Amino acid sequence: MIKKYVRFRQNGEVCFGEVRGTEVALMSGCILEGTLAETGKTVRLDSITDYLPPMDFPNILCIGANYVDHCKECVAEPPKYPLLFIKSTNALAAHNTPVALPKLYPNEVDYEAELAVIIGKKASYVSEEDAMDYVLGYSCANDISARDVQLKMSHQWAFGKSFDNFAPIGPYLVTGIENPEELHVQFHLNGELLQDQPVADMIFPIRRLIAHLSAGMTLYPGTVILTGTPAGVGMARDPQRFLKAGDVAEVTIGEVGTLRNTIC
Amino acid sequence: MIKKYVRFRQNGEVCFGEVRGTEVALMSGCILEGTLAETGKTVRLDSITDYLPPMDFPNILCIGANYVDHCKECVAEPPKYPLLFIKSTNALAAHNTPVALPKLYPNEVDYEAELAVIIGKKASYVSEEDAMDYVLGYSCANDISARDVQLKMSHQWAFGKSFDNFAPIGPYLVTGIENPEELHVQFHLNGELLQDQPVADMIFPIRRLIAHLSAGMTLYPGTVILTGTPAGVGMARDPQRFLKAGDVAEVTIGEVGTLRNTIC
Repeated sequence: MIKKYVRFRQNGEVCFGEVRGTEVALMSGCILEGTLAETGKTVRLDSITDYLPPMDFPNILCIGANYVDHCKECVAEPPKYPLLFIKSTNALAAHNTPVALPKLYPNEVDYEAELAVIIGKKASYVSEEDAMDYVLGYSCANDISARDVQLKMSHQWAFGKSFDNFAPIGPYLVTGIENPEELHVQFHLNGELLQDQPVADMIFPIRRLIAHLSAGMTLYPGTVILTGTPAGVGMARDPQRFLKAGDVAEVTIGEVGTLRNTIC
Repeated sequence: MIKKYVRFRQNGEVCFGEVRGTEVALMSGCILEGTLAETGKTVRLDSITDYLPPMDFPNILCIGANYVDHCKECVAEPPKYPLLFIKSTNALAAHNTPVALPKLYPNEVDYEAELAVIIGKKASYVSEEDAMDYVLGYSCANDISARDVQLKMSHQWAFGKSFDNFAPIGPYLVTGIENPEELHVQFHLNGELLQDQPVADMIFPIRRLIAHLSAGMTLYPGTVILTGTPAGVGMARDPQRFLKAGDVAEVTIGEVGTLRNTIC
């Protein structure tokens, strides 16, 4: 059964709860430790004004070039192995967090809609066959990237992808999705659909990413993996479409929800 | 005045203390919060068997290609801007932690002795002039790297540098060093000196690294920056010298101490 969890701040407190229609049933305990318990209290979902990321992810692992059509638009060969880069945790942001264009690098800031996979159990040398047992759930992510920094300043991508709030993740942590390959990853800019591709188009499916990464690199509970973006990013368009102040960036992934951030 | 702090586990507890000769004065509180206080208890330094990294660094930021001689030996152009990559936190290890060759990639594991700079105050858009005020202290680091994975499997370095225990940092956090540029970064493999270069040879000095990174990427207290390795890495030698089981890898940086790890 699909369950949707949300984390937010209200009256100065960090709250975690399960979304049930228009209500949120507040929970105590920790979902990673399997100790969630209903408190009996509820709040209205539309009363949440201060969303938090679903959890404080210790590592934001990102897979690049994981859709053939995105490789083509970037004139890049599809990789032979999953291509890992890492965003630093200062980049983590929530649903509704305004994302500022970096003062020094405001001109080529781009969106990348991605399915975020959240690891629930310590994973080390996990087989593809068992990999999905280590997934706690899913969220929406926007792998925001300053292309000038990412591609022209250096050949390593970390800096241009790690500016403050360049990793919005949310609004929900969604568990119980049987077949994530049936999901579609969509991106809307000011309401216009610019990315739309099924997760099934990934070059390396989720189970392969977990098997590959966990072979030597232990994935601890709470690790999040951004699984790559489909075709349609701003830098590959003609004319190019970079983010500018006032833009509304929305990542929508079916039942996983819609992550919305305004650029400022 | 130079002070040396050490973090370790003893009788099941995490301890933090100041090294004074052969004794460690145990401290309560948190060095990042400025709340350290003597407990009045001491232990003998040589009684420590279970070192921990000086702190649980939230992000392990790494600078590549920051010494001209190392660029030359790698047949790479010196970069025009500081080159950032990131190691995931599963890689963090302590002084004396055995470092296992990854089962799937055991053949080209290399050492990189580096000065680690630990940020003590939240740094955002810090000038070069003010940058050193944000440094809490220094430690020794070994940026261990599986060269086959780092360079042949992908053009992004994160995976080949993020295997478990590939980021040993320690044994001490050393504060009060007036001029880090006078330090020398040395690496010994089984007692043989293989790297030895002054910090003053860095292409981008510490103050520039902090100014560059903090311009858009907030450096939170406890962030560690590995500042790049001098010439003399194993892959650039003739014949090449990769790490093998039984090797003793030692990073020595003057008063900052000696970080020792055995390969297994």
